[in-house]
Amino acid sequence: TVCELCPVRDSSEPPVSILQRLREWVAIPSDSSQPSLWGEVERMLHVAADKITAMGGTVEFADVGSHEWGVPAETSGDPGPVRERAQESHPLLLWPRNLYGRGASDNKGPVLAWLHAIETYLATKQEVPVNIKLVLEGLEESGSDGLEELIQQRNDTFFSDVDYIVISDNVWLSRRPALTYGTRGSTYFFVEVEGPKIDLHSGVFGGCVQEPVGDLIALLGSLLDHRGKILVPGIYESVAPVTEEESKSYQDLHFDLEEMKQEIGVECFLQDTKEAMLMARWRYPSLSIHGIEGAFSQPGSKTVIPRRVVGKFSIRQVPNMEPAVVEKQVTEHLHRVFTRRRSPNKLKVSATVGAKAWVADLKDPQYIAGRRAVKAVFGGEPELIREGSTIPVAHNFQELTGKSVMMLPIGGHDDAEHSEKEKISRYNFIEGTKLFAAYFYELSQLQQSPQKMFHRKL
Amino acid sequence: TVCELCPVRDSSEPPVSILQRLREWVAIPSDSSQPSLWGEVERMLHVAADKITAMGGTVEFADVGSHEWGVPAETSGDPGPVRERAQESHPLLLWPRNLYGRGASDNKGPVLAWLHAIETYLATKQEVPVNIKLVLEGLEESGSDGLEELIQQRNDTFFSDVDYIVISDNVWLSRRPALTYGTRGSTYFFVEVEGPKIDLHSGVFGGCVQEPVGDLIALLGSLLDHRGKILVPGIYESVAPVTEEESKSYQDLHFDLEEMKQEIGVECFLQDTKEAMLMARWRYPSLSIHGIEGAFSQPGSKTVIPRRVVGKFSIRQVPNMEPAVVEKQVTEHLHRVFTRRRSPNKLKVSATVGAKAWVADLKDPQYIAGRRAVKAVFGGEPELIREGSTIPVAHNFQELTGKSVMMLPIGGHDDAEHSEKEKISRYNFIEGTKLFAAYFYELSQLQQSPQKMFHRKL
Repeated sequence: TVCELCPVRDSSEPPVSILQRLREWVAIPSDSSQPSLWGEVERMLHVAADKITAMGGTVEFADVGSHEWGVPAETSGDPGPVRERAQESHPLLLWPRNLYGRGASDNKGPVLAWLHAIETYLATKQEVPVNIKLVLEGLEESGSDGLEELIQQRNDTFFSDVDYIVISDNVWLSRRPALTYGTRGSTYFFVEVEGPKIDLHSGVFGGCVQEPVGDLIALLGSLLDHRGKILVPGIYESVAPVTEEESKSYQDLHFDLEEMKQEIGVECFLQDTKEAMLMARWRYPSLSIHGIEGAFSQPGSKTVIPRRVVGKFSIRQVPNMEPAVVEKQVTEHLHRVFTRRRSPNKLKVSATVGAKAWVADLKDPQYIAGRRAVKAVFGGEPELIREGSTIPVAHNFQELTGKSVMMLPIGGHDDAEHSEKEKISRYNFIEGTKLFAAYFYELSQLQQSPQKMFHRKL
Repeated sequence: TVCELCPVRDSSEPPVSILQRLREWVAIPSDSSQPSLWGEVERMLHVAADKITAMGGTVEFADVGSHEWGVPAETSGDPGPVRERAQESHPLLLWPRNLYGRGASDNKGPVLAWLHAIETYLATKQEVPVNIKLVLEGLEESGSDGLEELIQQRNDTFFSDVDYIVISDNVWLSRRPALTYGTRGSTYFFVEVEGPKIDLHSGVFGGCVQEPVGDLIALLGSLLDHRGKILVPGIYESVAPVTEEESKSYQDLHFDLEEMKQEIGVECFLQDTKEAMLMARWRYPSLSIHGIEGAFSQPGSKTVIPRRVVGKFSIRQVPNMEPAVVEKQVTEHLHRVFTRRRSPNKLKVSATVGAKAWVADLKDPQYIAGRRAVKAVFGGEPELIREGSTIPVAHNFQELTGKSVMMLPIGGHDDAEHSEKEKISRYNFIEGTKLFAAYFYELSQLQQSPQKMFHRKL
């Protein structure tokens, strides 16, 4: 059984050191969304690199983008020295159930769980059942500048002998473990309306000039109907149709609409059922208006006619929408609406493609390994889920390397990533470490004909 | 003739001291729109009070609102000592044509012109032809907190023997002098839409929740058509009709649409003629959307779904619109639009009435005195104009005291009040001082039957 090869599985009480180590990692304020903390991000990468080196792995710091944060690291099945860490007395008293702190769930807990899975194999079996390469990247919250270029540069070297790529950067949907096979993409739009050469006083010019804010409000108002349906012509045309199999998969998901309403404090969703709501989140496009730059946005009252305003909205794309087509449809729609207004102001629409949507083939061998690993550790099938948000690395790795990509989350559905209350539970961290160990084992057991195996076992 | 009684009129070169004094006043950074400078406002009021005292007037500092800035000051026809001021050498070299600085035109130049007109009478004739009371108020740019209460408190004392109230706090329309007989009022609206109890991520909840920004955009979009017409039902019903006489008065005004387009950098106005444009500015209501509080208004891209947003817009009212009725019409309209959306979010509409519109009777005696004074000093009829913006004191003084109110501007049309380039021209300051002196004389010559005089002379 897998338990024989996964030593963590059998230890009823995990060593204190692996919990203590996570606490030490989380204590480093390496939040890349704040450039002032990039020094801490670098420090964090060195701490991780030291850990990998101590385990016998080789580490290379790569020069990416305008920074130096990319760390492709490599470790093999060879055993190596394991560095001992001093234990504080009663370190768990402060952590009966959860460890709180930015990065606990997104993404230090999962990174450490991978290392601990490897470390435990090395400590007990002197080898890991598969060869492993790690890519630790520190600027994910800040656009992952340079990562794409790095992948392209190393495609024929570092990535050439890679069979499967697995990412753990998200969370479960419910209290049950999950495999993630898709994410939505995102394109961010900037709608600039420019009028007079100076801001005007609404007493002096109100009623006399075509105000840029009025144009912009009309443009933004043309994007959605009152139920959130996108009104840009053609935008739904290339959305992948729902297959019967996909439709069925939503029925088994554990997701309580009422609980979610409570959590975010809304009376209702735009959809009445769990299935419809999750489809809207995962596999249909959405458009959100975020705000206006250049208008009066402070508290209080000010009677200005702003000369230039920029509306901001974004569209979450899904398979098989092409960002370039979406951008063209939106731009043409906005110009059509603007032309009808016969405004003397100037309209400029621009867009930034954040990421394409990503969806994986669930019949891919590593999804089989993932499902078996979940079954081995948790005793049941994983939920097959997607993310409504955009995780560019999944799409980027799949597109640039041509390899199979899977997302294998261990974070809990209530981890509140990015918030001040971010946490990871002891349960998820420990069982997640076991899951990763089991995943290595199941990968090593994959046969040459995964399709057959799929039908036999699942 | 008026020239006999108006000594300034005959001095081909005005004393350097009166220009120098304005420069000293403007050098005091007493900008009440910045509370950090209220100490300077107080200092400025004391400088003005010292000047009045030196001229033989009596001064009282009134305790208004939560501040102490109100200064009703009084001077009579009695002569008093005139304080000499040291002259800098060549003080005019820095001021060949204009004096630049915040307050030069709005409102230190005009205040000083009144004082100089009085001072010159006292210095040359030992008396002023009329009794004069001054109210100097320092917080006009900050809402004039307490002024209304002060007027009410002093209605039966300080104001009881006042016949005419004249205010010089605005500018000409063109290069020709003007009398101002109306201002628009203003009501500021806050439209709050509140949804979830926390900001949401557009990847996770985009397409699933009714977004407050979407509701707000639709609400704001329902206010205006594409040509700036207000779509709130009933809003135009109480607008005073244009009389033939009023209509004719617009034809004589000097106002170059092309020049104004150049100045503010627009291709066109919503009106094609001078008359229509000025009517839109002065005597028709307008609605300007100023911005949104609570949405994403910074540069860059952020994929937030804001939980609560507040849209800001204001309506400039005109005679005979009642602010309370306008508020009701707008509030009901917005609730109607919101109800049609069947949104689960919460809508709250509130309003702040800045001021009522003000319009004076041009047949009032002091307008006759004003027209004669302009004719005496400038050799031609004044332009009869209004302000599109809101000058609450005009309405407040008229409403609270029941007295006749006139606005008698001396600022130039290109004075750029409130901007970094605010200035007053030497011409306007000197001729404006003469105008005020002439106005005192003409007031003293008014007969008991102004209606007759009106028909005889105008």
